[in-house]
Amino acid sequence: MTEQWDVVVIGGGPAGYTAAIRAKQHGLNVLLVERDELGGTCLNRGCIPSKALIHCAKVWHTVKNANQFGVNVAEANLDWDAIQKWVNRVVQTLRRGLQSLLQHQGVSVVKGEARLLGPQKVHISSDGSEQTLSAKAVVLATGSSPLKIPHDPNAPVVSEEQALFLPSFPQNVAVIGGGASGVEMAWIFNTLGAKVTLIEMLPRILPAMDEEVAEGLQQALKRQGIAILTNTKVSHISARQNKAIVNAGGEELEVDLVICAAGRKANSEGLSEHGITLNANGTVAVDEWQQTSVLSVFAIGDLVHGSGTAHGGMVEAERAVCGIVRQLGGEPLIPVPSSYFVPICAYTEPQALSVGLTEQEAKERGIDTEVARFPWRASGAAMTIGMTEGFVKVVADAKTKRVIGIHILGADATNLNGEASLIVASGVSIEQAANVVRQHPSLSEGIKEALWSLVGLPLHTAKRPNRGRV
Amino acid sequence: MTEQWDVVVIGGGPAGYTAAIRAKQHGLNVLLVERDELGGTCLNRGCIPSKALIHCAKVWHTVKNANQFGVNVAEANLDWDAIQKWVNRVVQTLRRGLQSLLQHQGVSVVKGEARLLGPQKVHISSDGSEQTLSAKAVVLATGSSPLKIPHDPNAPVVSEEQALFLPSFPQNVAVIGGGASGVEMAWIFNTLGAKVTLIEMLPRILPAMDEEVAEGLQQALKRQGIAILTNTKVSHISARQNKAIVNAGGEELEVDLVICAAGRKANSEGLSEHGITLNANGTVAVDEWQQTSVLSVFAIGDLVHGSGTAHGGMVEAERAVCGIVRQLGGEPLIPVPSSYFVPICAYTEPQALSVGLTEQEAKERGIDTEVARFPWRASGAAMTIGMTEGFVKVVADAKTKRVIGIHILGADATNLNGEASLIVASGVSIEQAANVVRQHPSLSEGIKEALWSLVGLPLHTAKRPNRGRV
Repeated sequence: MTEQWDVVVIGGGPAGYTAAIRAKQHGLNVLLVERDELGGTCLNRGCIPSKALIHCAKVWHTVKNANQFGVNVAEANLDWDAIQKWVNRVVQTLRRGLQSLLQHQGVSVVKGEARLLGPQKVHISSDGSEQTLSAKAVVLATGSSPLKIPHDPNAPVVSEEQALFLPSFPQNVAVIGGGASGVEMAWIFNTLGAKVTLIEMLPRILPAMDEEVAEGLQQALKRQGIAILTNTKVSHISARQNKAIVNAGGEELEVDLVICAAGRKANSEGLSEHGITLNANGTVAVDEWQQTSVLSVFAIGDLVHGSGTAHGGMVEAERAVCGIVRQLGGEPLIPVPSSYFVPICAYTEPQALSVGLTEQEAKERGIDTEVARFPWRASGAAMTIGMTEGFVKVVADAKTKRVIGIHILGADATNLNGEASLIVASGVSIEQAANVVRQHPSLSEGIKEALWSLVGLPLHTAKRPNRGRV
Repeated sequence: MTEQWDVVVIGGGPAGYTAAIRAKQHGLNVLLVERDELGGTCLNRGCIPSKALIHCAKVWHTVKNANQFGVNVAEANLDWDAIQKWVNRVVQTLRRGLQSLLQHQGVSVVKGEARLLGPQKVHISSDGSEQTLSAKAVVLATGSSPLKIPHDPNAPVVSEEQALFLPSFPQNVAVIGGGASGVEMAWIFNTLGAKVTLIEMLPRILPAMDEEVAEGLQQALKRQGIAILTNTKVSHISARQNKAIVNAGGEELEVDLVICAAGRKANSEGLSEHGITLNANGTVAVDEWQQTSVLSVFAIGDLVHGSGTAHGGMVEAERAVCGIVRQLGGEPLIPVPSSYFVPICAYTEPQALSVGLTEQEAKERGIDTEVARFPWRASGAAMTIGMTEGFVKVVADAKTKRVIGIHILGADATNLNGEASLIVASGVSIEQAANVVRQHPSLSEGIKEALWSLVGLPLHTAKRPNRGRV
C-alpha cells in the first residue's frame, strides 16, 4: 500500500521545516524527509555555528581591549578546543530543540534519502528500507552546497562549512570569496590571531550590499590587519609540504589553510528528468507562489537561489504553503505579501546590514533617489559603548517620499534589521517613521536621525554628510 | 535697549536644546540659556554617564565569564580610576560635540541664570552682567532634581547623579528606589563586586514597566546576588563612624554608601508667581502643544513630568516648537502626532524594555487584550551569544487586532525599542508586522515569533507560553 500524504517536504533546513510546520498548522497531513541532521546548512554548518564562533571572537576582542574601560587583564589566552566545544554545544542544543519542536507541532519526520519519482510520487530510502509515497503536493527544499575550487588534493583547502569545525587553529589563512560568509571568516580568524588574506574577484567585497557600507567595512577590516586583495582571481592552488600555495593575481601566497567561500550551488541534481525547469545556473525556476513547472511541486530556499539566506527560505516556505492551500481549494490563514525585502548582514565588527534597495540598485531601476546619512560618531549610544565606527544610510524615492533602503555599518547593526525592514516594507512616510519615539540613548536613534536628515531637519548632525565615512 | 528674540529657551538639556534647534530650523530667532553645562541631567549626570559606566560593568562581566567561550583569563582586576576616566571622557566628548552642533545649527547660546519676568520677558544674570530680554515665546526646560531623603548629615549618602562619579569604589551599598535608575545602580555596583541591597517601597521593582518583565528582572537580579527588599520603607538613615545605618522595614542595615534613587522633582520654583499653573506635585501643567497657562510660555521635559525621559522631552520639544510656529502664524514643517509612546528601559543584564501599554494598563482602560510570548531560550540568536534569559511579550487589542504594547526582557532589548515602537505606533496589523522578514539569526526575530504566536501560528515555539519565564 502506498502511503498518502497531503504534503511531502524534502529537506529539513529552515525553509523545509518552516514549510512542514506551516502546512501542519493549515490542517494538512505532512511528512518531512531529511537525509542528514535536521536544521540543514544554517543550523549545522552555516549561520548558527558561525555566529557562535563569532561570539567567541567578540569575547576575545573585548578581553584584549578591556583596559580602555577600566578592566585590566593581566594575561589571557585562547583555548581552541573550548571554542569548538561552545560552537558544538550551541548546534546540538538547537538541533534537539528543533526535533522536539517538530514533534510538538505534530509534524511527521523521517530520516532518509528522498527522490522525486513523478509529479505526486516520492521514493524514500530509509535505514535500508525502500518506500514509495504519494503526495498531493511536494515541497523541494534540498538546499545548496559550497562551490569547490580546483586544487592539488594535497593542499590544505576547506569549505566555508568545514572552516567552522577545524581540529586546530591555523596561523596563516587565505579566504577566497568576499561575500558575507568569506568576510565573516576573514574577520573571525584575524580577530583570533591568524594572519589573514581575503581574496575577491570583483572590485570590492560584499558586492550584494550597499557600496558605501561595503567600502566602509573594507577599510575597517584593513585597519584591523586583514590583507584584502580585490580584482584578484585565484588561478590555481598547489601544495608544498603541509602548506597551500595560492596563485592569485600573478603572486604566490603560502598559507596553512585555504578557506573556500566562493559561493554555493543549488542541490538540483536529477530534477530536470521529471520535467522541472532549471535556470542556467542550476537553480529551480519558480513563480510567485514558489510553484515549479510541475504544478504539484514547489521549491524553496537555496534550491531556488543557489546561495540564499535562511530567513529568505523561511518566507518562501510560508508562500509555498499558501500556494498549496490555495491549490488544494482552501484559503490560506495568512496571505504572504508578494514582494518583500530580505535583509543581508555581515556579523563582523563593525557589523553590516542592507535592507531594501541600495542606492545603486535604485538608480539602475531608474528611481530618482534622495539619500541621507548619520555617522555613529554623533551618537551618544555608540559613544558610551566605545563603538563609533560607521553610519546609517537611508535611501528614499524622491517622488513617493518613501524609504526604499536602509544600510548600516556599525555596532549591533544586525539587531536593527527588523526596524529597518518595517520602515521599508510598511510604506509609512519618512516623517511618520522619524516621528516614532526612540529610546535615548539607543542605536535605534541612528535610524531616526538619518530620517530627520532626509527631510532636511537633522537633529544631532549639523547637515547631511556627503558620504558615509568610517 | 532690550534684546528682541522670537524664542528664548531656558535650559540646555535634551528637551531644551532640541527646542532651540527646531525653532531655528523653522526660521525663528532663538536664544538658548543654560546656567551650568550644556546637555542637562542626561548628558552630564544621567543617561549618558550611567550607560558609559554600565558598559564598563558589562566588559567586566564578559571578562569574568569569558572561559565559557574559550577565552581563558588568568587574572583580571578593576581600575576604578580608569573607569571614571572613561565615563568622564564620554561626557566631555559629547558635551564638546553638542557645543559645536549648536554653533553649526546657528543657535545662540548664553551661559547664565534665566528668570521669567513676565509672559514675554526674561531676565538673565550672566558673568556678573544683568540683562532683560523680550521674547515672543518662552520655552521652559529647566528639568528636575533628585529627591532627597532626610538623613544624618554625617552619613555617607549620595544621589543617583553623584553615584556616577564616586572618588572610590564602595564595598557595601544600599540603593533606595527600584525604578529604572535605582535598578541600574544596583546592577552596576553588584556586577563590579560590591554587596548591594535594593530597597523599594512598592510590592515590586520597575512599577512603570510590564509586571512580568519587572518580575523576571527581579528574579534575575536576585540570582546575580542582589538583595531586594520590596514593600519596604526607609524610616531613617543615621551615621555610625564612616558608615550609614539604614533603618528599613524594622531592620538595621550597615553600609558604606547609600545611593538615593527615590525619584526626582521638577525645578519649577518661582513659576507660579507669574501665573503659571503648577500641578500638585510641582510639575508645570501644559496642554497638548506644551503650552502653559500663560499663552506665550511653553514647558517641556522633566519640568512637566518631575521624572521623565530624555527622549520624551525631545518629542515635547518638537511639539512645543510646532505650537509656537502655529501661534506665530506659520505652518510647522512637520506636525507632531498628538499621541505617542515613550519607551522605558533598564540597561541591566538582561535588559528590560516596555513600549506602549502594559497588560495591566490595558485592562485598567477596559481594553480586552490578547497576549503572546516568545522565550529567548527558543531563539538561535540568543543561544549563539549565550544569553537566553527572558522573553518577548506582545499585548494586542482583541477587538482592533492591533499591537498596543511590546515588552521585552533579554539581551540587547533596548536596541529593539525602535522596532517595537514602530509596530505599536504605526498601526500596522499583527499579520503585516509578523510578515516583515527578519534576519536569521537576530534578536529581532523574537518580536516576529511572539507576533506569530499571537495569531495562533507560532513557528519556533510549539504553543503560547502561559507566563514569561526567565
